[in-house]
Amino acid sequence: MNRKGLAILMRTKMRSLFPATSKINQMQLSPGEGNKLLAQQTSASTNTEREFEVVRESMNSAISMNKTEVLDAVLNEFSEGYFSLSSDDRRKLLLILAREYDLNRAQVHELIRQYLGLEIPHAEPTSHEEEGRLAAFYRIEWNLRHALKPMYEVLFERLNTHPGGLKFLCIIRKDILSILEEESLASLRALDSYLKEKLITWLSPAAVELHQITWDDPASLLEKIVAYEAVHPISNLIDLKRRLGVGRRCFGYLHRAIPGEPLIFIEVALLKNVAQTIQEVLWDDPPIPEFEATCALFYSISSTQPGLKGINLGKFLIKRVIDLVKREMPNISTFATLSPIPGYMQWLLSKLASAEISDPTFRENILEPEEESALLDAFTECADGKNAMEIMWNLLTSTNHEWTKSERMISSLEAPLMRLCARYLLQEKKRGKALDSVANFHLQNGAMIGRLNWMANRSEKGLLQSAGIMVNYIYRLENIEENAQSYFSTGYIHSSSDVGCLVEPLKDHEATRDD
Amino acid sequence: MNRKGLAILMRTKMRSLFPATSKINQMQLSPGEGNKLLAQQTSASTNTEREFEVVRESMNSAISMNKTEVLDAVLNEFSEGYFSLSSDDRRKLLLILAREYDLNRAQVHELIRQYLGLEIPHAEPTSHEEEGRLAAFYRIEWNLRHALKPMYEVLFERLNTHPGGLKFLCIIRKDILSILEEESLASLRALDSYLKEKLITWLSPAAVELHQITWDDPASLLEKIVAYEAVHPISNLIDLKRRLGVGRRCFGYLHRAIPGEPLIFIEVALLKNVAQTIQEVLWDDPPIPEFEATCALFYSISSTQPGLKGINLGKFLIKRVIDLVKREMPNISTFATLSPIPGYMQWLLSKLASAEISDPTFRENILEPEEESALLDAFTECADGKNAMEIMWNLLTSTNHEWTKSERMISSLEAPLMRLCARYLLQEKKRGKALDSVANFHLQNGAMIGRLNWMANRSEKGLLQSAGIMVNYIYRLENIEENAQSYFSTGYIHSSSDVGCLVEPLKDHEATRDD
Repeated sequence: MNRKGLAILMRTKMRSLFPATSKINQMQLSPGEGNKLLAQQTSASTNTEREFEVVRESMNSAISMNKTEVLDAVLNEFSEGYFSLSSDDRRKLLLILAREYDLNRAQVHELIRQYLGLEIPHAEPTSHEEEGRLAAFYRIEWNLRHALKPMYEVLFERLNTHPGGLKFLCIIRKDILSILEEESLASLRALDSYLKEKLITWLSPAAVELHQITWDDPASLLEKIVAYEAVHPISNLIDLKRRLGVGRRCFGYLHRAIPGEPLIFIEVALLKNVAQTIQEVLWDDPPIPEFEATCALFYSISSTQPGLKGINLGKFLIKRVIDLVKREMPNISTFATLSPIPGYMQWLLSKLASAEISDPTFRENILEPEEESALLDAFTECADGKNAMEIMWNLLTSTNHEWTKSERMISSLEAPLMRLCARYLLQEKKRGKALDSVANFHLQNGAMIGRLNWMANRSEKGLLQSAGIMVNYIYRLENIEENAQSYFSTGYIHSSSDVGCLVEPLKDHEATRDD
Repeated sequence: MNRKGLAILMRTKMRSLFPATSKINQMQLSPGEGNKLLAQQTSASTNTEREFEVVRESMNSAISMNKTEVLDAVLNEFSEGYFSLSSDDRRKLLLILAREYDLNRAQVHELIRQYLGLEIPHAEPTSHEEEGRLAAFYRIEWNLRHALKPMYEVLFERLNTHPGGLKFLCIIRKDILSILEEESLASLRALDSYLKEKLITWLSPAAVELHQITWDDPASLLEKIVAYEAVHPISNLIDLKRRLGVGRRCFGYLHRAIPGEPLIFIEVALLKNVAQTIQEVLWDDPPIPEFEATCALFYSISSTQPGLKGINLGKFLIKRVIDLVKREMPNISTFATLSPIPGYMQWLLSKLASAEISDPTFRENILEPEEESALLDAFTECADGKNAMEIMWNLLTSTNHEWTKSERMISSLEAPLMRLCARYLLQEKKRGKALDSVANFHLQNGAMIGRLNWMANRSEKGLLQSAGIMVNYIYRLENIEENAQSYFSTGYIHSSSDVGCLVEPLKDHEATRDD
């Protein structure tokens, strides 16, 4: 072993003497704890410039060291060191990685020169000379291809095959994404898209394992379910036990390199009909025996790794869960979700805000005439010169959702809110895709919009996000691929006629659908 | 679904009606049967030009079709079709893949033009303009990188995530390698190195699972062990049961995409001392109780996939097995192999053959003077004017190894054969690495050459390969990395002094070793 290798081994041994570091070590081994411990670390923020240099050096060794050398020690030292860095120092380190370890551009230019020097030989050589020229051509092309790979690829590849490394890469990407939210740095963005590409191949469906999560699973795994449930928070262990009990299912994707922690999980309720309100789903006792169920309702899907943003594991998960449930319970014929509409209110309020604009040419009146008059009639008392959109704005922004406490207000708001919600889901696009993130998720997975449900979720969150409206996305195995395909290529959104009707122009659209 | 998609689904459905195809289908699902059925298929060789075109078309669809379309059906059709092709048609198809689906070179040249058009911007932009220029630069670089990826990468990536696809890729590579043995085709060689790179990442240690193979494993898996055991053939089930029983261990690497079939497996015997002959290992009843064992002897390591040639899974397997055994049985301190020397006789006989050459300046006398006279004295009767090397040649090439039946001949050949074997293992190199393939395997894994064993394997195979000599490679955990490293960088071969002594010049070498 060379002196550098020895030095590193020594340092690693030294570190294991400090409790702080061994904590980090645990964290690195059971990465679930990462964030909490991390917080402790950073709050302690004992990092000196010198310590940063040590981490930077270990990063350099992790990239430049020869394969067969003391890599494991180096990679451990690097990850431990990284976890001990303050977020500022992480930012500094990641920028160094992005800028100083991307390409050797002098080499790229040299290879391009050689490459352009060769004329493209015939792919089917007839002579030995031609065969030789072709071989040389492929060689240079191969060299150019490899020269165009950033140096930091080595670090990613090595971490991926290192115990705890995949989880570490997820944390690195989480850090990158939060930096990019603050400021757009081209070099860091390039690093991110490269890392994302890598993660996509490493997390291919072939590499992840579908696991049914039950009450028999280790508490350490169930604890993660409680921690990561993003849609309908799990209040306590009894609540969790219910969600894994009779009339329910829970499935997750596990990757063997991230043991005991699903990357994404989905909660299923077995019902007689597609649920209209969240109360129908979050029961205490199963409303029907399982054998009477004809509908599997996906009422919650949560991904646990912020660092996997933009990597769609849900699509495969849903497809495989459908297959599984179908096999276990052939009498189940409907697969649907009861989903939030996270972006609806934000979009609607910004539209209503435009009511303030005095100049009507710049003001988009999103209300139908009859809706307008209905609102003005219903709320003459608080109207005083306000127009209908202003009235609506006032109602929806009233402190602790006053309007939901009056049947009159509820009923007079239902029509416009439901229509506008359909418009929001079916017609409001961003880069040709549905503006609403949850809608976009299910549509690209091949679902269709089945039904809007009024007053389906009266929780604070539900009212803030979507005035309590929830939507059922329907998965029909026979046209999942077809729907996904047309949404992917044309952005076309399949929907039931009920929802379609709420939005006039769609009718014709709907009519032309099956041509 | 578009008409093409439909057509493909139709064909797939049609196919499943034909028994022949459903057989292939099974084969595709439980690929272990691949070769046998394949033989049936090809011998039947019912392939018409039309059928070839169908396979070619499905290959084209598998590459060019949009992600979310009926890919699974296409990939199934392609693999089924491929298996039904004769080896000539496979060759034709693989050449088409290599030549017509590599790069769009017009596009590459266009992107290079754009790329060279930009001057390399500063990595740490100070203004918005610079940031923008940098982003544009990265974008083009990204495009160029992707344009340099062959089109067939899509096929590889898609097959990798398709059930049975990884096994299929192994079979494809096996076919490629056998074509390349016949004729060196530059385009096919480029395809092969690309596929090999992919397989290396997909079979990273993180992706494979160490499994202890026991008598409790499914017969379908044990059957593979019998079929693939390459070193000491397993005669029957009792023999197999012994190798999995008391005093023995068997470990394999499994990949979840190739279920029920280890990619590589290693057989271990638990002994008191490092075995000198294969008879000591292939016992019927364990010579000692396990708790008395101090040595774990790797007496056989076999890889099951010819298509994974050149991808070293053995290195990680051995390291992990050592860790595992150490944990299970702390009293085991020695880890060694009893290995064949497959290339020794071939090398020696070619050297001896040079004895025929009359001109002494071209003749290398590989015998020491004392060895020479000893041989001449011992075999005066059959000498008649022959020189010692010719005598040796005659003895070693005598029909059914006559020499092994006479103690006199054995003892007079021992000295030269052992010395020359040490020379062969320690000094005969190919591209700076050990000429002997097995030696090269263990040395690059970080082993050292421990001991040569005379008359260690008297089987026909043993005598043909290495005049019955076998070698113990020693794995010392504390310097595996170090040995591998020095072998990798300098080609230096670590050996015990016993073996070193057999080769004079090595002594000094040995002396300088620890500087």
